[in-house]
Amino acid sequence: MRIITAGESHGQGNVSVIEGFPKGIKIESEIIDIELKRRMSGFGRGKRMAIEDDKAEILAGVRNKITLGSPIAVFIKNKDLKIFAEQKDELPHLVIPRPSHADLSGAMKYGDKDVRNMLERASARETAARVSVGSICKQFLLNFGIRIRSYVTDVGAISSDKKPLDYEDILNKTRDSKLNCIDKNKEKAMIKEIENAEKEKDAIGGIAEIWIDGVCPGVGSFMHFDTRLDAKLSFYLMSIPAVKGVEVGLGFEYAKKRGSQSHDSIYYTKNKESRKNQTGFYRKTNNSGGIEGGISTGEPIILRAAMKPIATLRKPLDSVNLKNMAKVKAIVERSDTCAIVACGVIAESMAAIAITESFLDKFGCDSFKEIQCNYKNYIKNLSKHF
Amino acid sequence: MRIITAGESHGQGNVSVIEGFPKGIKIESEIIDIELKRRMSGFGRGKRMAIEDDKAEILAGVRNKITLGSPIAVFIKNKDLKIFAEQKDELPHLVIPRPSHADLSGAMKYGDKDVRNMLERASARETAARVSVGSICKQFLLNFGIRIRSYVTDVGAISSDKKPLDYEDILNKTRDSKLNCIDKNKEKAMIKEIENAEKEKDAIGGIAEIWIDGVCPGVGSFMHFDTRLDAKLSFYLMSIPAVKGVEVGLGFEYAKKRGSQSHDSIYYTKNKESRKNQTGFYRKTNNSGGIEGGISTGEPIILRAAMKPIATLRKPLDSVNLKNMAKVKAIVERSDTCAIVACGVIAESMAAIAITESFLDKFGCDSFKEIQCNYKNYIKNLSKHF
Amino acid sequence: MRIITAGESHGQGNVSVIEGFPKGIKIESEIIDIELKRRMSGFGRGKRMAIEDDKAEILAGVRNKITLGSPIAVFIKNKDLKIFAEQKDELPHLVIPRPSHADLSGAMKYGDKDVRNMLERASARETAARVSVGSICKQFLLNFGIRIRSYVTDVGAISSDKKPLDYEDILNKTRDSKLNCIDKNKEKAMIKEIENAEKEKDAIGGIAEIWIDGVCPGVGSFMHFDTRLDAKLSFYLMSIPAVKGVEVGLGFEYAKKRGSQSHDSIYYTKNKESRKNQTGFYRKTNNSGGIEGGISTGEPIILRAAMKPIATLRKPLDSVNLKNMAKVKAIVERSDTCAIVACGVIAESMAAIAITESFLDKFGCDSFKEIQCNYKNYIKNLSKHF
Amino acid sequence: MRIITAGESHGQGNVSVIEGFPKGIKIESEIIDIELKRRMSGFGRGKRMAIEDDKAEILAGVRNKITLGSPIAVFIKNKDLKIFAEQKDELPHLVIPRPSHADLSGAMKYGDKDVRNMLERASARETAARVSVGSICKQFLLNFGIRIRSYVTDVGAISSDKKPLDYEDILNKTRDSKLNCIDKNKEKAMIKEIENAEKEKDAIGGIAEIWIDGVCPGVGSFMHFDTRLDAKLSFYLMSIPAVKGVEVGLGFEYAKKRGSQSHDSIYYTKNKESRKNQTGFYRKTNNSGGIEGGISTGEPIILRAAMKPIATLRKPLDSVNLKNMAKVKAIVERSDTCAIVACGVIAESMAAIAITESFLDKFGCDSFKEIQCNYKNYIKNLSKHF
Repeated sequence: MRIITAGESHGQGNVSVIEGFPKGIKIESEIIDIELKRRMSGFGRGKRMAIEDDKAEILAGVRNKITLGSPIAVFIKNKDLKIFAEQKDELPHLVIPRPSHADLSGAMKYGDKDVRNMLERASARETAARVSVGSICKQFLLNFGIRIRSYVTDVGAISSDKKPLDYEDILNKTRDSKLNCIDKNKEKAMIKEIENAEKEKDAIGGIAEIWIDGVCPGVGSFMHFDTRLDAKLSFYLMSIPAVKGVEVGLGFEYAKKRGSQSHDSIYYTKNKESRKNQTGFYRKTNNSGGIEGGISTGEPIILRAAMKPIATLRKPLDSVNLKNMAKVKAIVERSDTCAIVACGVIAESMAAIAITESFLDKFGCDSFKEIQCNYKNYIKNLSKHF
Repeated sequence: MRIITAGESHGQGNVSVIEGFPKGIKIESEIIDIELKRRMSGFGRGKRMAIEDDKAEILAGVRNKITLGSPIAVFIKNKDLKIFAEQKDELPHLVIPRPSHADLSGAMKYGDKDVRNMLERASARETAARVSVGSICKQFLLNFGIRIRSYVTDVGAISSDKKPLDYEDILNKTRDSKLNCIDKNKEKAMIKEIENAEKEKDAIGGIAEIWIDGVCPGVGSFMHFDTRLDAKLSFYLMSIPAVKGVEVGLGFEYAKKRGSQSHDSIYYTKNKESRKNQTGFYRKTNNSGGIEGGISTGEPIILRAAMKPIATLRKPLDSVNLKNMAKVKAIVERSDTCAIVACGVIAESMAAIAITESFLDKFGCDSFKEIQCNYKNYIKNLSKHF
Repeated sequence: MRIITAGESHGQGNVSVIEGFPKGIKIESEIIDIELKRRMSGFGRGKRMAIEDDKAEILAGVRNKITLGSPIAVFIKNKDLKIFAEQKDELPHLVIPRPSHADLSGAMKYGDKDVRNMLERASARETAARVSVGSICKQFLLNFGIRIRSYVTDVGAISSDKKPLDYEDILNKTRDSKLNCIDKNKEKAMIKEIENAEKEKDAIGGIAEIWIDGVCPGVGSFMHFDTRLDAKLSFYLMSIPAVKGVEVGLGFEYAKKRGSQSHDSIYYTKNKESRKNQTGFYRKTNNSGGIEGGISTGEPIILRAAMKPIATLRKPLDSVNLKNMAKVKAIVERSDTCAIVACGVIAESMAAIAITESFLDKFGCDSFKEIQCNYKNYIKNLSKHF
Repeated sequence: MRIITAGESHGQGNVSVIEGFPKGIKIESEIIDIELKRRMSGFGRGKRMAIEDDKAEILAGVRNKITLGSPIAVFIKNKDLKIFAEQKDELPHLVIPRPSHADLSGAMKYGDKDVRNMLERASARETAARVSVGSICKQFLLNFGIRIRSYVTDVGAISSDKKPLDYEDILNKTRDSKLNCIDKNKEKAMIKEIENAEKEKDAIGGIAEIWIDGVCPGVGSFMHFDTRLDAKLSFYLMSIPAVKGVEVGLGFEYAKKRGSQSHDSIYYTKNKESRKNQTGFYRKTNNSGGIEGGISTGEPIILRAAMKPIATLRKPLDSVNLKNMAKVKAIVERSDTCAIVACGVIAESMAAIAITESFLDKFGCDSFKEIQCNYKNYIKNLSKHF
């Protein structure tokens, strides 16, 4: 499977193309739209989010809501477009880079003092295209019982260590949450934290946990370093703008433990139906986060992503005017105060892409019928073998 | 640049092949050997390390110590080979998977009860090949002033928050360290921690920091999610066996901060020669870890990798005999107690590969002469432009 | 550079996305439109061509007619769309596969009896997207003096062995040609041949030659089999629907020659400016077609592509009804009689893509300014060195 | 599946590495050796061939003759090595490029006047590594009834238009042929032709046909231009040194035909067992060469490759001394007169690689057991569906 996204923040819109996606999968643009809406949600978002009422338009690859096996193209129109590909726009040059954004590193890379030429693409707007791809992957994965959901564990200094019981528990506990949080008590403190930051014209980071349910054992591979499922997931999560850390399972905590305290002992029951992973093997703990040796174990895959505060502050930091190299304050724009909920939704999408890729590597990718047949035989043989 | 490594733990040896590496680079196998030795070093390693006195033999791609531009092949012979590719070996089947290793996930993926067929490749032995590639990349990068070095910050519960002043400071402070640590005081406690774990037949994890010095601004790209330098570094670091977490710059700490406290303000001096990054731009902090918007800023790139305890314990955990599905203890083998020093060295190699790839993407890859010319012109223009 | 195209014959339209294209290149959609028009031209086309008045709309990657370095997305709307991605279309099932088309091979691959699900993507309509990409690549290459043009040498049994003097000669001689032919006499016979075929409700094949002018020496590489420029060109040309043969330079004729008669002897003049290839080296013949050892020599690159007759005949061949497996005649549809002119235009585009990829591999791909600087230095050094 | 080969003509040897090859395939190095011997065979080869008694040594990826799923590494030691990677060799600089070889194009690309640095890799010696990979792929494909064999149809001006009845017919008729030719009469004339060329110190080209038997319908795809099986085959065949033309099925002849005369009409029989392709569909002709719409039809896949005369002539052509730019004759070396038999064997290998890649794309790539299961189900469903 190959994916390319395109699109600028103030251009015509975002385009995503997926090649190598199987034939015969039911894909609904309404479901994509729901994910696009989730991406704009969460307490702490600015006014821009009101503008972004995104609709996914499927341009190719789908007929009567069923994929054709051909590349799928999705278009998400921008509402407030200002840059026309083929017409001189009137936008003033932006010459003051924001610290922590791509503005300066891009300006240096390309030798271009108008940082607008960087931020148009480096903007988080681009993640809308990723979410459209992620939603298509999620719709595929659901056919095999794979579901992906994030929840927020940290906002700034406020941290929740509550763990969900299972996938359904996440759905239940986050249903009415403003911050996609499963910990009602801590959520209040988090909201307070955001309100304070907002008052002080500041931005604030956060941490999201991503729970991937129902992946059968055997997805990913240790045969080459770049086929490991954890490496791929880390690649895609770290590619999200503002993400600065990624963990699998216990993550950094695992480094502080003894092996005897932390490794997930292996158990077996003949009552295979009782176990979600469709084998008799089970664990009493899941510190590995569902991946051992770069391969899914059949336990839930659990990831964490740390997001730094957004770069655009209303209380601007020191910067430099690239025209005259004078010391100035960075530009003040309306902006989000905290976008960790969105970050979690985007992380779900990136995880869905990674899982779909490794899943198709194992089970083939021509058509739903064929993949389903291959999958069922694998599960049957797995069950028979052990 | 394309890389493939091959090799089993008890096979003939490890092979690595690098395609797309420039012509005209001086490569010495003695320098690879030094890195291979570093990979085997560190307090806490077991007896196996004594066996592994690795020598890199360059089979192709180099003439008179200079690369030809053709694929480079390196062979590292195994000393204690037992598995012959073409001869029936006498090794007994291994049917008891170790928790936290690839044994069980591999057995399920491939439907094979002899977990030896998994662990031969899933073994950390394979990282020797990566280190040989990493050393070749390091020898290339040195031509452009890029140097990479790791140091250990955590062993189990013992944590050091000392930061090095600069790259030389790492070299100086780790020179006589048994644990590749820059903090002499904490190192003693770390050694104690390892000794205790060893006595208790346990294994223990750790954290290494990787410092990449001298990368010019502009390496990596935000133009597509999979061209971001931080994503690529995270991919390669997380692909190291036992690594469960990766951070760039402040990492998870960054999520707990306000933007105003943490973003690296931008400053400029006309005295460009005073700055290592060959531009007039500089920062007073480096919380971003040298990467903004997926692109190097010119500040040192700083990464962290968390390693879980080794899976093979002499105090074995619960497992299952795959022949009869009976509950048993995992097999007891001699093993390392702590391998975080090696993990850091491997992380250096993986980082060197990532940086080389993105560097060649920017500057072309035909020959040293041409890349050097392109590089110098870029730096000159960068300096002229700002 | 990565390219994905999407789009069905009767869907919303064709989408193409190009990732890794340099920043700072002037791209005009009007120029793409001219190429799209050329793709629809040529004596022997059916009525469908009248419908296809294609317009390229740039959705992303370009601002004020200048590329941003971000992925470029182009949309070409279908005029007669009948298949809606998200709405049940009324199109009847097509169950009689056309011999020589993808209908049956696709139906077998995907286990689907409605061959419409195959032909929607397998249709030559998809090549419009390729031409849009090709035109963008051509606009890039023109900055480095590289121009690509095809001409028809064979239509059915009528063959011309006239060779153009140079690139300008092709332009001059094909200007008023209905068949993009440089041989006025043979063109008349070719037109007659097409008229005869049309009368007999038949289709007819042809051969096009592609001339790539101005590629400097050193593009492509023999360092690995899949980096050879001739291999890549062959890959892309053979990927055009209906192309069944590809030649470089003398091609199959070369196999019939002695080395002493056919290899292009090497000569040198100190008067370097006299030679187009910007070195003093020159050849008196160009039987190698401008590529030796998988690398451009600096002489024009000359390719040939053989196109079989179109699969859709108005005088239908034997086939099978997939519903009841009865012997039937294939379906009769309006269709082109000969599309070799279009095939040549598409081949130009595919060649432009291949050359651009290998060119960027050599000279970097960040920005026009940087590539231009690298290119000039390479040419200067080349000239100085020899 | 990813493949990298490495190795210089006078270095330690050739290395090939295959990543993504399934677990559980029986691979014997003796069978590789037979293919390596075939590569050195054929009337018209020079003395060097006597030196090259190649033996494949499997360094990784195989245990007890069975693949492990890990990367396979094969080493073919050079007998007459002169260039040591790490030691100064005494070889004199070569400064006179041979026309038609990579010597000059490489020298220009890399700015290096010692053309030995080019020809060491550009040499046909490198194809030994390809043949080792090809043999491994052939051993895999045989499990699915896929067999690949070439035969020579042209040597210089002598051309045979005899076609084999089927795969066995090729084996039978070429068994005692010095030129791997199925046409005894023409073979005599071909041998005469080679003897004449040899007397005149010249070299001579030829054409080989490649027959791929037993590929089930549905391998390859038209969904994206670069997934077409014919494009991939063309890519790999044109990557063979000295190949200048590639045809699928009728090839260039197809361009000269009417559709009604040439397209392969579709027929169906209920007696499915009678047909090799395991479906009821069959054709009375195979002008498409077993590929329609970029997908295998189930008929034999038939390709042709045209090889130019070898570049190294004992009757040397005009060239230039790169040291002083004086006009000189190219260097005289012992050399082959005609290598078309070897070219055919290499083409078999490249075809085997292409087919294996597309086959694994369809059926998954984890293990033989799993692929076999997926394959059988696909064939069963195919048979049931139609």
